[in-house]
Amino acid sequence: MTDPFDLHPQLSADCSVVDDLPLCRLLLMEDANYPWCILVPRRAGIREIHELAEADQAALLREVTRLSMAMQEAFAADKMNVAALGNVVPQLHVHVIARRVDDAAWPRPVWGAVPRRAYAGDEREAAIARLRRTLRSRGQST
Amino acid sequence: MTDPFDLHPQLSADCSVVDDLPLCRLLLMEDANYPWCILVPRRAGIREIHELAEADQAALLREVTRLSMAMQEAFAADKMNVAALGNVVPQLHVHVIARRVDDAAWPRPVWGAVPRRAYAGDEREAAIARLRRTLRSRGQST
Repeated sequence: MTDPFDLHPQLSADCSVVDDLPLCRLLLMEDANYPWCILVPRRAGIREIHELAEADQAALLREVTRLSMAMQEAFAADKMNVAALGNVVPQLHVHVIARRVDDAAWPRPVWGAVPRRAYAGDEREAAIARLRRTLRSRGQST
Repeated sequence: MTDPFDLHPQLSADCSVVDDLPLCRLLLMEDANYPWCILVPRRAGIREIHELAEADQAALLREVTRLSMAMQEAFAADKMNVAALGNVVPQLHVHVIARRVDDAAWPRPVWGAVPRRAYAGDEREAAIARLRRTLRSRGQST
């Protein structure tokens, strides 16, 4: 028996679920300063990329690169930021963030740079719809 | 003709060269606060992981996971941080940082958290030697 996968409560509290990709749950961070997604492999008890089985590592890479390309297109990003930190939330999760040279924190990394900004009105749903549409048009099942 | 690979001058200025792995130049950042390595794929004109050819993406993943395991062992890390940001230095480079719960910035990400600390005496050479030894003992050619 392997333990079931449960999304860490902090990630549940901070994010909206966009979809399940083949390996990862795809989340949107509740911070309207930047299009900021998080990929969480649906595997229990994993803290580091290198703790994943090799096939899962390859799947994670595929999902990171596909998401990164889709976000760059969907949000006209100048640079993508990809990071697995996990110093606060130990469950393995990979940040994929669309950065623009005119965003609130540029060129600093986003963590702790400026206060979070809540999505207003239909901004969140619009961002999710745009992301889903772009993933779909690029052949990523969503 | 493809352009030759040249290490970005900022990376040259900030880091020591540890070795060339099959794809990447392996660097040690000049910041004694943390064992902080950087992997730079020896490919010209690449800014994003998803711009690499698929075989190079797979090689990068292999080198990231092997380095991450070796650093975790060599430096008794509590958590590995892996990140491709590149907002300041556009040449694709991946940070692999060994974090400890008692390090200067924990649990914050390292960028901009505390002033850099120069290596003193033979600290730098000792860190490089320890890293090379661990990579070698794990079967990573160095």
